Amino acid sequence: MHRTKVRVVEDALDANNTIAAANRSDFERSGVTVVNLMSAPGAGKTTLLERSLEGLAEAGVRVGVLEGDVAGSFDADRISVLHLPVVQLNTDNGFGGECHLDANMVRSALPAVPLDDIDLLLVENVGNLVCPAEFRIGEDAKMMVCSVTEGEDKPLKYPLMFRSCELVVINKIDLLEHLDFDVERLEANILQVNPNATVMRVSAKTGEGVDAFRDWLTSVSARVGATA
Amino acid sequence: MHRTKVRVVEDALDANNTIAAANRSDFERSGVTVVNLMSAPGAGKTTLLERSLEGLAEAGVRVGVLEGDVAGSFDADRISVLHLPVVQLNTDNGFGGECHLDANMVRSALPAVPLDDIDLLLVENVGNLVCPAEFRIGEDAKMMVCSVTEGEDKPLKYPLMFRSCELVVINKIDLLEHLDFDVERLEANILQVNPNATVMRVSAKTGEGVDAFRDWLTSVSARVGATA
Repeated sequence: MHRTKVRVVEDALDANNTIAAANRSDFERSGVTVVNLMSAPGAGKTTLLERSLEGLAEAGVRVGVLEGDVAGSFDADRISVLHLPVVQLNTDNGFGGECHLDANMVRSALPAVPLDDIDLLLVENVGNLVCPAEFRIGEDAKMMVCSVTEGEDKPLKYPLMFRSCELVVINKIDLLEHLDFDVERLEANILQVNPNATVMRVSAKTGEGVDAFRDWLTSVSARVGATA
Repeated sequence: MHRTKVRVVEDALDANNTIAAANRSDFERSGVTVVNLMSAPGAGKTTLLERSLEGLAEAGVRVGVLEGDVAGSFDADRISVLHLPVVQLNTDNGFGGECHLDANMVRSALPAVPLDDIDLLLVENVGNLVCPAEFRIGEDAKMMVCSVTEGEDKPLKYPLMFRSCELVVINKIDLLEHLDFDVERLEANILQVNPNATVMRVSAKTGEGVDAFRDWLTSVSARVGATA
């Protein structure tokens, strides 16, 4: 049973990569850079977007958001007040309640995304530290948010996720004074599994460090066409 | 592609249920009650076990722990200082880095679990709010931990997980005074998706509410043989 299962997973990943390449072609044709945004549930992805996306319009970067969730449109509703194009993609509608976005799910949502009117598409994945890292969606960059309430050991327990991301945002640093949490140890664990990672300390709640994240988004959006 | 995928998932769940029933037979033969403990990454499952399991020996309940993680033995190392039988089960060893435990993985670990010497087996699942709820492992009860740092909307975004659990422990209540968090709203959302849930407020860090959780574990351990 195990061998069969592995083969099915490999076939699924092959098909996924084919569709991811098709997504990439569409993104490149429209000049859109795509960021795959991942985290555990409740790490603060949506709050980080709420804090950081408004300033991007002034920097000349037109942003769209694709919100992935198992159920509901809570995050899309929150982002919609920013007057950005936002599309909700639920994995329980015909996708069996999947714990991650894959290339085919993203492809099914693309007709609703105004690719020609944006420069940067942020895809907020399902909250999960395992499977989202395994499925390409046609993105230019993978990034993640981890929160100081989650424990310093997470990079060692979920190495693939931390290894696959070029940016790791450490969120909720406003809570550090109330926690027994060693943020240097978390950073060392991140760099142990991914020595090339860019690591930022942020409080999406207070706004501390959000400018650096906004600068990163701006630099990523200038990357379009440079990668394949 | 989608229809094939759904069929594969259904076949896998059928096979899983068959193996889960075999696990259950073994647990019943040894008089062991099994609790499937789930949460998002970093919600505090291991800390809750550290705080609650020592008192159980005095209450006459002999406990064993099966620790499920993608990689590493950090949680098993923490639990081992309690001098309980603890077994680490990693999903990246031959299981493809799965984001959940299934019945077959648990079965593969059973030879290492001294079933005849314990009354209660706590299985700490991989940190994930989606897939662990879909795979029976042969347990008597499913429970979960959610943390007040994760947001009040989680029951509505991950309804299957909250619906499948008879007990929801709300952890980290010591942090409430530092958060913009409405714990009554979280409780209302839990009961909206699962009106039968037992809900407890706990701080595994300070110990507040841990006695109630210990009492729940004691009552569950008395259940053996009563359910099928």
